Amino acid sequence: MSNELRSRLFEELDSIQFVDPHTHINALDPTSSHLGDILGYHYYTELAHSAGLTTQQIEDAAESPRELVPILIEKFGCLDNTIQYSWFSEILSGLFGIEEALDSSNWEQIFNQTESQLGAPDWCDQVFEKSHLKAVFLTNDFDDPLAGFDTDRYIPCLRTDDLVFHLGKPETVSRLNQASGEEVTNRQTLDKAIEKLFEHFKANGARACAISLPPGFQPESIVPGRAEKAVDAILKKGIQADTADQAAVSKYVFWKLAQCCDEFKLPFDLMIGVNRGVYTDGVYQGQDLYDSRVSLIQYRHLFNHFADVKFPISVLASVTNQELVSYSWIFPNVLTNGHWWYSNTPTYIEHDAAARLEAVPRNKQIGYYSDMYKMEFALPKFNMYKRILAKILAEKFVIDRRWTETDAIALGKQVLSDNSESVFGF
Amino acid sequence: MSNELRSRLFEELDSIQFVDPHTHINALDPTSSHLGDILGYHYYTELAHSAGLTTQQIEDAAESPRELVPILIEKFGCLDNTIQYSWFSEILSGLFGIEEALDSSNWEQIFNQTESQLGAPDWCDQVFEKSHLKAVFLTNDFDDPLAGFDTDRYIPCLRTDDLVFHLGKPETVSRLNQASGEEVTNRQTLDKAIEKLFEHFKANGARACAISLPPGFQPESIVPGRAEKAVDAILKKGIQADTADQAAVSKYVFWKLAQCCDEFKLPFDLMIGVNRGVYTDGVYQGQDLYDSRVSLIQYRHLFNHFADVKFPISVLASVTNQELVSYSWIFPNVLTNGHWWYSNTPTYIEHDAAARLEAVPRNKQIGYYSDMYKMEFALPKFNMYKRILAKILAEKFVIDRRWTETDAIALGKQVLSDNSESVFGF
Amino acid sequence: MSNELRSRLFEELDSIQFVDPHTHINALDPTSSHLGDILGYHYYTELAHSAGLTTQQIEDAAESPRELVPILIEKFGCLDNTIQYSWFSEILSGLFGIEEALDSSNWEQIFNQTESQLGAPDWCDQVFEKSHLKAVFLTNDFDDPLAGFDTDRYIPCLRTDDLVFHLGKPETVSRLNQASGEEVTNRQTLDKAIEKLFEHFKANGARACAISLPPGFQPESIVPGRAEKAVDAILKKGIQADTADQAAVSKYVFWKLAQCCDEFKLPFDLMIGVNRGVYTDGVYQGQDLYDSRVSLIQYRHLFNHFADVKFPISVLASVTNQELVSYSWIFPNVLTNGHWWYSNTPTYIEHDAAARLEAVPRNKQIGYYSDMYKMEFALPKFNMYKRILAKILAEKFVIDRRWTETDAIALGKQVLSDNSESVFGF
Repeated sequence: MSNELRSRLFEELDSIQFVDPHTHINALDPTSSHLGDILGYHYYTELAHSAGLTTQQIEDAAESPRELVPILIEKFGCLDNTIQYSWFSEILSGLFGIEEALDSSNWEQIFNQTESQLGAPDWCDQVFEKSHLKAVFLTNDFDDPLAGFDTDRYIPCLRTDDLVFHLGKPETVSRLNQASGEEVTNRQTLDKAIEKLFEHFKANGARACAISLPPGFQPESIVPGRAEKAVDAILKKGIQADTADQAAVSKYVFWKLAQCCDEFKLPFDLMIGVNRGVYTDGVYQGQDLYDSRVSLIQYRHLFNHFADVKFPISVLASVTNQELVSYSWIFPNVLTNGHWWYSNTPTYIEHDAAARLEAVPRNKQIGYYSDMYKMEFALPKFNMYKRILAKILAEKFVIDRRWTETDAIALGKQVLSDNSESVFGF
Repeated sequence: MSNELRSRLFEELDSIQFVDPHTHINALDPTSSHLGDILGYHYYTELAHSAGLTTQQIEDAAESPRELVPILIEKFGCLDNTIQYSWFSEILSGLFGIEEALDSSNWEQIFNQTESQLGAPDWCDQVFEKSHLKAVFLTNDFDDPLAGFDTDRYIPCLRTDDLVFHLGKPETVSRLNQASGEEVTNRQTLDKAIEKLFEHFKANGARACAISLPPGFQPESIVPGRAEKAVDAILKKGIQADTADQAAVSKYVFWKLAQCCDEFKLPFDLMIGVNRGVYTDGVYQGQDLYDSRVSLIQYRHLFNHFADVKFPISVLASVTNQELVSYSWIFPNVLTNGHWWYSNTPTYIEHDAAARLEAVPRNKQIGYYSDMYKMEFALPKFNMYKRILAKILAEKFVIDRRWTETDAIALGKQVLSDNSESVFGF
Repeated sequence: MSNELRSRLFEELDSIQFVDPHTHINALDPTSSHLGDILGYHYYTELAHSAGLTTQQIEDAAESPRELVPILIEKFGCLDNTIQYSWFSEILSGLFGIEEALDSSNWEQIFNQTESQLGAPDWCDQVFEKSHLKAVFLTNDFDDPLAGFDTDRYIPCLRTDDLVFHLGKPETVSRLNQASGEEVTNRQTLDKAIEKLFEHFKANGARACAISLPPGFQPESIVPGRAEKAVDAILKKGIQADTADQAAVSKYVFWKLAQCCDEFKLPFDLMIGVNRGVYTDGVYQGQDLYDSRVSLIQYRHLFNHFADVKFPISVLASVTNQELVSYSWIFPNVLTNGHWWYSNTPTYIEHDAAARLEAVPRNKQIGYYSDMYKMEFALPKFNMYKRILAKILAEKFVIDRRWTETDAIALGKQVLSDNSESVFGF
């Protein structure tokens, strides 16, 4: 009975159109050109490496999709248990109509077939339609011109990691100068340049500012004198500056971004908890891990100070999810946002989403985002989420709390679809 | 099949009379006078604030129940997913016989109807009976006269947060002087005053000493000389005293309380993990959060030293529950106690209670307490717990371990009811 | 339906022969002589102590099994909810054919009956066969002669806690001298002695090196000069040496062990997170607990440096499991290994194993080990694991992901059996 109920709820959830509130889509090249683009997603290269392919083998093959695909396939026998592998299978069946598993005997034929499907002029529209997508958020570098695409379908989002954590690199400052039209020489001109970025993004339909943060980061306001000294040091010495100055600049810029979010009325997406480059010999994008010993108490000053800024928050580890639930239940400006990266697997999604659905106001939960680089991944990732959401609604609401199916579906629709639009202001 | 089994077990558990081993009931005014008392519970004001009502709106309305209720109702559409909202629904149906949801169209009529029901002379007895309650523990300030109520039904419990953490406030010392009849001027008289409190509480039927503790607290014995200096500093300078002295006094008083628990044979309820006032602009009682990075290893000296004191322990975050399970399995004097506050939602209760039931001796688990401020909340909160307990017993014991239903119910009865009585010594 | 599916999958898993990749079996005396050996397992003594027996009572009785058994039975009424108690019941039924619960009325008769069964010349073979065991790994002291037993059935494993953490004890050095034939007087001879141990173990069929580590341990390479000074200090002053020197020696020896694992091609089992002797008055082996605030980021240098060493990792607390999943998914040389000690209970196994099965390459998961001291415990412990594995495969793979039962069983077989053999090199 429970399984049939889950299926019914899934069907209803699956009929809903929605916006994907966080992706890494390149609006000028949103879809894959061939299977190599799909299997080049870091989940497949890093898992294949973890299972035994060397980084060298993968990098050597990465230049040519017809070399990369067969060497990855060699490792499918070690990976087909993973949920990430299931995304690939569901892309094959859901978007290409291919029910067979890819293997060494059929890959070339399937490569060719899918390449031709991917080349169809309306492929991208097909993907949007089959995925029930209305629009997707982008992750734009701060110096992105935001030109040449439909900003109603591809919604700009200002990504700010470089400004906060890599201002010591000369190229960051020169990119900032160029993008803002300012000449950054001190704290004042830095402020001005950042404001210019917000003006540019806001004028081009940006709906959010976003950043990923390491577990040790603790935002706080830096007094102007201290900030000036630190900014001067960074501009002069770059990454040779004292670590104390670098840390002060990070905090200063972060706080400035929050001020701009306040002024320009943009939600500030915080993605909390990643350590970059932990595995130094890993494949591209497969080097980052984390220390799960992080607490949202580190953000208390931020949440208290910026009462009018919405902070949709993603946490990297499931052990931080209860804090996220509690902080979202107490702070009006803290919202739950998706299931990020290492927590984007069914066991953790189910535990974390269930806890949110029963304790956080329903208008403050952004259920899911795909985090995808290529449009083809929206379908399987959101389907995974919708199946879990249907399971939770079936078991925890319809069965345990005797909700009607109609009410359960309405709750599902709100976290899957409505809140993305209300929070980011459509 | 599993659902029917759960129902059968729930029915059996629901027929059991029990004591609620931790509440904030005012024995002189235990029940609500009107819906405003019920909806004034911090869960509703903080969730409504989180969903968009301002603190100011809530505080302005709080003076008058007929203003508070309708503004809270405005936000029910954002909160009706929460388990806390379900408690309110179950109060309406289970205690007042009202099956409709409260909304802007019917609230005044329901307010009036329930006000009249609440005014019945036997209302409190009705609530005890419908809730299957035999008695409830109180949370008494250390200077509570403990007079004017039936201490068999309302069981005194000495709450000690003020003594440990706020001895630097002049009013704490003057309240202590008055309550104890001592003149606290140094460590010796402080000790004596505390002993007097225990004598008073013990003489009036107190069954426990209790305290809530921040995540950073680490109990240890303070040598007399150090303690004397620190107590002198606090008595002289109050909250202007050195933080080191304040910390030493907190540890000293805490240790003294444990000594008194030993001497007076009272269990010492520890509620571990809350940071007070994290959200400074939150509503009343809706400002406290936590840092989940806490470990029971911080309490090793305490548990080793006071082998004869029972420590029923509540942890704020589910991520600490496994430590609680393990420490209760190893230390004879450590017991599991309820599901506290931010962990008092079904997903966390189920995960945490299941882990306890399979690894902690069954005589050392106090299953649940309501933590309520008004008697009407025992019914829905304990019903929530009993449903989860029935689910765990059904799935993990009857199905997975092939227990008989009779044996499963006996285990449920022990953690729901028997242990509260044996641990606190009825 | 789900229950029948679970049963079918369990039956298939239960027909598989496998190796137990971590035990504390004494190869010269692998089975129990009487019920006292079985109930003397620390799980029963520590739980009985936790439930009320004093350490003294247990130690006094421990000399004589006919005294120990009846005093433990007295506490069974407090322990029969625990999964550990269920292991004992399943030993009685599965190995001895006894379906009754042991109690004060029947224990002597059962003691006698089982003593006679345990005395059968083929008892050990019976246990291997009924448990479906092919072989078990041992935990050998570094000075174990490894003589007198069949190393195909009892597989040596070099346990190294003493070398890393107790080199300051004179007996450790003298045992090391004797075992290695070296005279350890400085860093160079220490290195040489350790290498000799590896030669000895490798020559005698050892398949792994293993160690348990406290939560604060952070491996790193110690420069030779510093290491020399620290080793000299330890050899001269023993446990009176500076704690900084002791810490440096621990890190130095640990790193040296990793180098030897690299050179001798042995996996290095890391069991991360235990604090020894937390409960000072606990029963034998019932004194250790933990601080769950530990992160695998502490091991980043190790994992990066020793790319060719396999690190099968056990974590003590379920809250560290997600890190283990993520690090195993990224680092080729990190593998998941069993469900250790305080995480070896169904609720935590289910949550942790499910997360692994859906995100870690299937060839990198060693599903379970028994950690047993006496052969009789393999049957109930592995049965517990197989039931949970069957539940996960049924619910998360066959139902949620529409896998065939055949595919699900193949995945189960791989983590239960195949990987132990491939990882440890059979």
